[in-house]
This record gives sequence, C-alpha cells and structure tokens, in this order.
Amino acid sequence: MSQFRIKFMPENRVIEADQGTSLLNAAAKAGIMVKSGCGGKGTCGACKVDVLSGDSLVNGTGNLTPEQLAKGIRLACKTLVQGDMTIEVPPESRLQEHQVLMGDVQKGLLQESEHDLLDKFGHHPLAIKQRISLSIPTLTENSSDWARLSIELRRVLKTGDKPIHMPLSILKQLPESLRKANWDVSITMTDTEAGLTITHIEQGNDAPPYGLAIDIGTTTVVVYLINLITGEIVDQQGTYNKQAKYGDDVITRIVYAVENEQNLIEIRDAVVETVNGLLDKILTRQSLSNMNIASAMVAGNTTMTQLFLGVDPRYIRLEPYIPTMTNVPSFPAREIGLHMLPEAIVHCYPSVASYVGGDIIAGTLVTDLANGEDIILFIDIGTNGEIVLGNQDWLVACACSAGPSFEGGGITFGMRAMPGAIERIIIDPETLDVSLKVINNQTPVGICGSGLVDCIAKLLSAGIIDRAGNFQLGHKSGSQRLRATTDDKEFVLAWAYQAGGEKDVVITENDVKNVIRAKGAIYAGIRSLLNMVAVDIEMISRIVIAGGFGNYLNIHDSVQIGLLPDLEPERFEFIGNASVKGARLALLSQNAWREAEELGRKMTYVELSVGVTYMDEYMAALFLPHTDMSLFPSFQ
Amino acid sequence: MSQFRIKFMPENRVIEADQGTSLLNAAAKAGIMVKSGCGGKGTCGACKVDVLSGDSLVNGTGNLTPEQLAKGIRLACKTLVQGDMTIEVPPESRLQEHQVLMGDVQKGLLQESEHDLLDKFGHHPLAIKQRISLSIPTLTENSSDWARLSIELRRVLKTGDKPIHMPLSILKQLPESLRKANWDVSITMTDTEAGLTITHIEQGNDAPPYGLAIDIGTTTVVVYLINLITGEIVDQQGTYNKQAKYGDDVITRIVYAVENEQNLIEIRDAVVETVNGLLDKILTRQSLSNMNIASAMVAGNTTMTQLFLGVDPRYIRLEPYIPTMTNVPSFPAREIGLHMLPEAIVHCYPSVASYVGGDIIAGTLVTDLANGEDIILFIDIGTNGEIVLGNQDWLVACACSAGPSFEGGGITFGMRAMPGAIERIIIDPETLDVSLKVINNQTPVGICGSGLVDCIAKLLSAGIIDRAGNFQLGHKSGSQRLRATTDDKEFVLAWAYQAGGEKDVVITENDVKNVIRAKGAIYAGIRSLLNMVAVDIEMISRIVIAGGFGNYLNIHDSVQIGLLPDLEPERFEFIGNASVKGARLALLSQNAWREAEELGRKMTYVELSVGVTYMDEYMAALFLPHTDMSLFPSFQ
Repeated sequence: MSQFRIKFMPENRVIEADQGTSLLNAAAKAGIMVKSGCGGKGTCGACKVDVLSGDSLVNGTGNLTPEQLAKGIRLACKTLVQGDMTIEVPPESRLQEHQVLMGDVQKGLLQESEHDLLDKFGHHPLAIKQRISLSIPTLTENSSDWARLSIELRRVLKTGDKPIHMPLSILKQLPESLRKANWDVSITMTDTEAGLTITHIEQGNDAPPYGLAIDIGTTTVVVYLINLITGEIVDQQGTYNKQAKYGDDVITRIVYAVENEQNLIEIRDAVVETVNGLLDKILTRQSLSNMNIASAMVAGNTTMTQLFLGVDPRYIRLEPYIPTMTNVPSFPAREIGLHMLPEAIVHCYPSVASYVGGDIIAGTLVTDLANGEDIILFIDIGTNGEIVLGNQDWLVACACSAGPSFEGGGITFGMRAMPGAIERIIIDPETLDVSLKVINNQTPVGICGSGLVDCIAKLLSAGIIDRAGNFQLGHKSGSQRLRATTDDKEFVLAWAYQAGGEKDVVITENDVKNVIRAKGAIYAGIRSLLNMVAVDIEMISRIVIAGGFGNYLNIHDSVQIGLLPDLEPERFEFIGNASVKGARLALLSQNAWREAEELGRKMTYVELSVGVTYMDEYMAALFLPHTDMSLFPSFQ
Repeated sequence: MSQFRIKFMPENRVIEADQGTSLLNAAAKAGIMVKSGCGGKGTCGACKVDVLSGDSLVNGTGNLTPEQLAKGIRLACKTLVQGDMTIEVPPESRLQEHQVLMGDVQKGLLQESEHDLLDKFGHHPLAIKQRISLSIPTLTENSSDWARLSIELRRVLKTGDKPIHMPLSILKQLPESLRKANWDVSITMTDTEAGLTITHIEQGNDAPPYGLAIDIGTTTVVVYLINLITGEIVDQQGTYNKQAKYGDDVITRIVYAVENEQNLIEIRDAVVETVNGLLDKILTRQSLSNMNIASAMVAGNTTMTQLFLGVDPRYIRLEPYIPTMTNVPSFPAREIGLHMLPEAIVHCYPSVASYVGGDIIAGTLVTDLANGEDIILFIDIGTNGEIVLGNQDWLVACACSAGPSFEGGGITFGMRAMPGAIERIIIDPETLDVSLKVINNQTPVGICGSGLVDCIAKLLSAGIIDRAGNFQLGHKSGSQRLRATTDDKEFVLAWAYQAGGEKDVVITENDVKNVIRAKGAIYAGIRSLLNMVAVDIEMISRIVIAGGFGNYLNIHDSVQIGLLPDLEPERFEFIGNASVKGARLALLSQNAWREAEELGRKMTYVELSVGVTYMDEYMAALFLPHTDMSLFPSFQ
C-alpha cells in the first residue's frame, strides 16, 4: 500500500499515512485532535479542514457550501489521502487540551469534604508497600524464597488466613530480587478483602507507593496522582478523550465500536492512550517511573468503562439496554497496557445500569447519600442527566436523555465552558439592551450551558419568550435584536462587530425549545423518582449537583426555568467532578471501596421508558418553569 | 545467516538449520530425540551420530576413538552445521518414545487404592462445569449479563460468600456467548477454597469437563486425561522429557538453564512442548479440543517444577540449596501456553525443599502416610533417593544422592528397564553358569536397575564378590566368566554371541562399587531419619516404594545387598508412579489437594549434609549388606 507524507499546519508537523487514510485519522496520528461529533459519518460538519495542497478522494461533503468547497475546505472524516498533502486545521475544528477545565481541586489538597469522608471510612489504601528484612538462608534454615518472604509478610502485616497471591511474573524475579537487595526488600501489594496480591519487589526503600484516580468521561479524561501514604494529590492532568474522533456521544461511539472487532480494539486503544498520555506527563513532571504506580481506580459511565476494558458495548444501546457487567472484575494493568506496575490491580467503579454508571456510584459515595435519615437528591447533568434519590434505607436511580444542549450541542452558538463562552447575561426588559459576562473576559464567540440557563431565564423575564419558549416578535421595545429569519426567530446576544466575527451571536427559538426539552427531561426524571417513592419535593434535605456544568450553574435561574426543584438555595450544593472524587476516595480507603460496591448492589435502577409516568411528567415539564405552577411557588 | 538442509536417516527427514547449529539441536528440530547425558558438553559420548555427507565444524570429539572418527562418527552436541548434511542417528543414541513404560495403570481404571483414597477425600474436582439456564432480560428485569449469570450461579452452586473471579478475556466474550446460546449456557470453572474462577462459557451442553494429571519427571513425562465427572482415566501418553538434550540430570539442566535468559526460556519451552505434544496426541485420539480441558495438576521434582514455570533454578544447586518456592502459585494455562482452556488454572504440587519435590508430596499423599498412628516409610528411588518417614503426628524427609546407577547410569552395560535389559539372573555357585531373564525375552543388551540389584545379590551368594564388593578372581569354579581386564575386573553375564553384538555383556568391579555407593546412600538416609526421630527399624509398619525402578525390585535381593531394611516381605509395598497417582487424586478432590498443601507445610526437611550422622551411616553402609550385620539378622 502506498504511503504519503501529510503535513499539518500551522504545526508544520509531517506524518506518513497509507493511501485511503482519512484526514481525521491522519490528524490523530499527528497528535492533532480534530472535533468529530458524528464519529466520521460526514454529517455534523465539525471536522472542517483546509486542504492547502495535494491529492485526495472526497467521499462526502456534508453541509459544506459551494463557497467553502471552492476555498479548499473539506470534511476531514470524508477526505481520503491519495498523495502527499498539506492540511491546515483551523482552531474551531480542534479539541484543545489546555481548555479542559480542572478548577475544582487545588493540587496538594483534598477538599475538606473528602477529608471528612476519608476520616470516616478510614485511610487504608487498596495498594500498600511494606519494607521487609529477611533472615539469610542457611543449610539449617533453608525454607524457599517465597516461603521465607510470605511468612515474614504474614507476621508483619498480621494477615491471618488472608490468601496471598503471587503472580508468576513476580515469582520469576523473586530469587534475584531478594539476593540483589541483600534480603532487604520493599514489597508492593494490592490489598483487598479477597486477598493480597504481590505486584512488585524491589531493593528496600521508604519511597511511598502512588495511585491513580482516573475519571473517564465521554468528553474529557482526568488523571490524578495520589500519594497513597499521605493521601495527598501530587499532580493532575486532563485532556479530551481521544475517542472523540469516533463521535461526541456514547451512542455514536457504540455504533462505531460494534461495526467490527478491529473498531472495538481501536476505540479501546484510544482511551487507553489518552490515560497513558496523561500519566506519562505526570510521571515525567514528578520524576517517577511506572514502577512507582501501585494502584488505579477508574470511574466512568457504563459505556466508557466497557470501552476502556474492550468489552463489546452493543447491548447497552439496544433495548432492553443490558450492560455486560455492573460489578467490574479487577484485573492487572498489563492486561490493558496501562503505564503502571504491570501486575498492579486496576479497579473500576461498579455501575447500576447501562445509563447509570460508575461515575454516578462514585458521586453517590462522595455525597454520603446512603448514610443518614435525610433524603438526598444527587444529579449529574451532562448529555444524560443521571439522578439518584435516597437515604440510608433506600436508593433509586434513573437516567434521562437531556441531549447535548447543556454541553453546547444542537445550539446554534453552543460551546463548552471555555474562554470566549458567554456565561452570564443581563437583558434590559425595556430596551432589550444586553450586558454579557464572557469566560476569561474574551470577545464572545458562543454560549455555554450555564450561560444558556441564565439566558433563557432572562429572555423569559424580559418577555422575549413566553412560558412555552415561543419568541414574542411584537415586543414593546421594538429592539432590532429580536428578529425573524427565513426559518426561525432569534435574539442577538452579541453583534458581529462585538464578537469579532462575520456573524451576530444569537439564540434562536429552536435553541430555546432544545433547552426546554433538556431541562424538561431532567425535571421529569426527578419527579418520576419522587413519585415512585412517594416523597414530596419539600422532603429533600439536600440537592447535590455534580458535573463540570453544574459547577457554574446559577440556582435562581435554574429553578426559574424549571430545571431544578423550587427549594431554598441553601439546600443546593455543587460538588464538581464527583466521579474523580469518588475514585480518589476509594483508592485511599478499602472501606470506601467496599461501600461503593455495596452501593452498586443496593441501588434500584428505574427504567423511565417503562410505563407512562415519565412521559406524562416530561410533557408537563415542557413549560417555563412548568405546567403546574404550584410546583414553583417562588415564581408563581 | 546461512541456512542449510540437514537430512536425518533412516527417517529421510529434512529440516533447515542455521550455520553453526549443533547436530543435537538440528535433530531436536527434526523431532528426533538424541541422548545427551552431559547436556552438550561433549563429555558423555551418548549422542554419537554418523555423518554420511556434508560439511561440519567439529568442536570436540570427547571419548571417540580414531577408528570411530575415521568412520564418520561424531558427537552431535559438538558438531556444527557448515553446509547441507546427511546424518544417520543410530538406535543406541536415541531416546525412543515407545519405550516409556506405563505399566502401572490400565486405561479406564483407577487402582483400587486410589478409589479408596478418593472415597475418603471425597470426589469434588478442582474444575467443575455447570449448565445454567438464564431468564431473558427485559426492560423491567434488566440486570447486567454478568450479574444475571453470577447470581444464578451462586444460587445453583450454593456458593455463599465465596468470591467468583471473572477474567477479562471471558468477560469480553460474555455478551455474545449468552445470546448465541439463547441464555442456556455451560460454565466451566476452577473451584478452590479461595474462590471460583470462570474459565469458559459455551452453548449449554452436558459433555463432561476433563482434567490433566501430569507427571514431569527428569527423564519421562506422562500425561493422563481424566473425566472429572466419573473420575475415569480416559487416556494416557508418555514420552521422554524433551529437556533430555540439555542433560540427563537436574544439575546439568540447571547449569544450562542459568547460563543466560534465553537458555531458561528454551529449557522451559522444551518441557512445555513435551506436555503439549502428549496432550495433542490424546486430544486427537479422543476427538476433543483444548477447550474441553478444564484443569491440570502437575507433580514433579523441585527443579522440574521451576523449569516448567520458567523460574530460575540456580539457587537449587548452590549451597544452601534454596528453591524459589515450595508452595507453587496457581496460574492460568495461557501464561505458559499449555493446550487447554487458556484461563483454566494449572496447579503444581508443593515441594518441601530443593531435593524433595512435589512428586514426593504426591507420593506421601497416595501412601496415606500422615493419617494413622502407624509409622510408614516412603522411598522413591531414582537418581536421588527421596525418603519420607512419619505418621499422623510427625513427618520427616530427606534426599540422598544415589547417583544414576539404578537408572543404568555409570554402569558399563547399564540401561533403563526396557526390552533387552537383564532383569533377573541366576548364577550356579559351583560352575558360575548364568541364566538370564530379559525384558520381552529379547537378546540381552544390558542390565537395568532391578537386574543390577539381583545381580549383585547373586554375585555375593556365589562368592564372586566379597562383602566389600571386591571381585574374587581365585573363585573355586575357575570359570572364564570371571576375569581381569587391563584396568578392572569383570564377570560376564552374556557372551557376545548370546548378546548378538561384538562385546560380552559384563558387570565390572567398578560397577559393583557404584551400586554399593548408591544403595549405601539410600540406606544411610533411611538410618539417619530413623536415628533423628529415635525410631527402630522394627517400628516401621509399612515400607512403600515408588518409582519405575521400585516396581520391578526384588525385596529379598534388595535386603540382601542392604538397600532396604531387613523386615518381613509383607511390610513392603510397591506403588509404581506415585507422583502421577497423587496428581490424579488432587485433580479429583479438593480435600486431597488441601491435604497435599498441608503435607508440604507439615513435613520437616532434614538436610543430610549438615552434621556427621549421615556420613558415618554412609561409610557403615558401604558393605553388603552392612558393616553392622545385626541390622540384617536374616543374612547373619
């Protein structure tokens, strides 16, 4: 097969690619992450690149205009290499690593709430390291290397009858390890209820073992390096999930993954490479080696977890939506090639169902939801809204498909919460003049999830839209910001000259309807759970909101549009990335890990598509804030 | 590197070999097992081949005579390929597979004593298979595949809290396995005290799972296929250990194995290939696949066990003689590439010390030595004599280096117990005329271990040798059979014309002294153990003798030469290959396997080289039967 040289600009980076390779794959090979909402189907138009020179085969042009095509703009996913090429990838088509926001923790510190939980569960990590000094064998004291070591380990660690597992690979190193170290060795082990597993033997030393708390999100992946002795967060690194090139959402990725076995391996490798890439950066920065990493705890949604392990996800997508596993077997790192001790055990958070995953159990754990009489509501808002309700006696959970609006998807000027995104808006109800707050105070280029919630609340307050989300073109102000287009109505948030672009930044009636459907789905999920267990809204003592989006949400706005229940602001709490917090906690505490596994078993999953309750609730929630205003007394 | 074509005769088999390959390795590649006593050092002369044509580099000629060299006879280990060659491997230089004797069991039957033990321990194999019919998932009954399966397995098998381990590789197959089978599946599992491990999931069926009992001897390897449901021996196959080309004895193999990492892998691969070769033959014969093989139990001496696992054996050989492990961790078959279910667990018998291995624990188990008040002596006679003494309260064991005499090594006409070997002899004390019994009634070509014992007893009775083993050339008969040579004295067992060869088959004074040293070493070992625990010979209620050699031993002769203690014949028992019997038993009974592991812990190993007792006993035993005739009242 012919190979060609593909140069990527402005990096001026050259890679070799086989004839027929898509520019999307070629870019990935060059380390350039190109957006791909539809997973390479040519439909979303996110992967536009500029072909500066060279031969290619164009397999599809999607929504590109004749003008764009004339200028050399192509869809990277549908343009196949036929010769040497030079390509420019414009900023708007890139996933940019530095934009992964990691605002919720400071390096070196666990948050106070995490400290409290760690105190409660007890600091007893899933990996330990023990220095052992052994007697030197003689003709009369001639027990085998492994007997000598295991007897002393049992004595020092007071293991009782707990099985100690010795992997063959470590056993092979044992004779030389002991003798080179002159019988003074440090033993790294995984320590769980089921037993101890030896994962490393080295010259005796007192350096701490480290663990990884890994949050595998559909969009972003975050790795934390934890000192397992002190519990300290030593370093952290986040980036976009390299699976992004196979699609933005789990469904697109599942469709790709199940096409053939090679695809499944490819998409598994993409996330493993993502994690390894983060880990390598951290290791370099901390002057550590993979042999210092003794443990990993992974939290992710059910699809992310299955793909991470290379387990076929097809039945997650097909009714009746069955995941392969909810309790995930632990396995040695070498089995998926993570850059840590090859025999170190990788643990994955259990999930509850296909659409309530390990990230939600992790959040439930750090919310400390199941340990008191108070009823607590936990919500993680992303493409799916996952909701958990319960207390020490019962736990119910559901997932509702909110769609990608809150993450910027399907919204004309939607974008993630990154520099340039509108996050707050003030609208003068008389003149409809607009003041904006933009992330990093840059010129506005779009609007993020929390901005959307704020915007719709303000559109409603200003009378620009009615409670059904319909635009009121005859607004008394006569403002030019409110206008009809050929096929929609829109409100101008920033004029083109303010936005530094060619187009006005607007929100359309269609955008508003999308957000109403999204918030309706989540509110209906909350109501369905409440109905099911006959709990009134007022009985909820705390509402805990997780997810990057949740962190920036304005409570007043959210209640006003009917996304969140109408309760006093004091009852609301934001906990940011609950998933990685749960991963950190379980990594550091065997009891927390046991509790996590227990939570997975105790939680009752409610399939909202069964029965009519949810659909009724959903229909009733398609108003601002709701059809039944008695549910929102503050806004009556 | 140049490659040449090497043709082996009379097979007319051609293989390709790199320039510089030894003919020993080339022959192995051609599937022809050439004897190699010294492991390729060029000293033993066992690997003589006839170079019919072609260029070679001769690196050493050992004990070859100028006549032999002139005829084209070369040492295969020291002759390196330099061009296309044609080689003839004469029969006497070959290890011949069909000569591995397997007389001690009949296919289809466990011996009565094994049945009794199995009844006692209980038939509960280390691998089980369970057919399970699962409910079909629905929207309301939507637990994950693994939860559905594990809950039903727990219910059916009444596992209680026992952990169930699901390997990643099986988990990956789970969704398709369940659905293709329409939720009616058969699950194969390894079942031990520590938990259940799923090793295979297939369409529901009632075919039995099979297990392998494997005896890895230094010389021969035997594989038995066992139906784990009925306990029946379905098939068996034995052959020479392919490691033979690296030396006859464990020390030579250790020296080879530790030269470099590649050698260790090579010698490991040799035994794994040996086992796989046997297994493949059995599978073909029984129309089974590797996926039917659910379990393996391996018994071998400590060195064989370490080499089978690829664990560096160097410290077995160096004082203070420390093995890497006595309790051997179990591991999945895929880790060493055995042709069985990749995730099926391979168990290896524990050993006690470097020279008291798993084969001896296996023998102790089937001897049922540790379960009554009676004191029992277990002896396995081979190159090493391993001895166990004890009862339910205490167990002591030792190993004494008998040398290879009893296996035919170091004896002028020594050979293994195979067709053509003299096994019985009658000498007329007046005329010194000789009558022989030869295995398979063939013409005599040499003398095997049991024949040697008999021969020496008869030489003594006939006055041909004195109690120190000195030949009495002035024997009253004046027989020409008794004669002096340039550097030794000898007795003719068969004249050349009777033996169909060019030489008379003789036993020399040096041969006799070698046997006296061998029997002295074993008897001294027995006496040392007895002294240590202050037990009189008379207090031994049973003497159980294992090993291929032991099977053909004449008790009267053995006592007369002082190899075995002077007790009534009724107290002696032969149990043949005790090692593989123990492997069969543990494969079929979890309790037996626990007892085996317990035996390994309970047994006290006595290092004979410590202290003077053993050396004193050895010196005293260098007479026929002994210096202290009061120990042999029957022959006083």
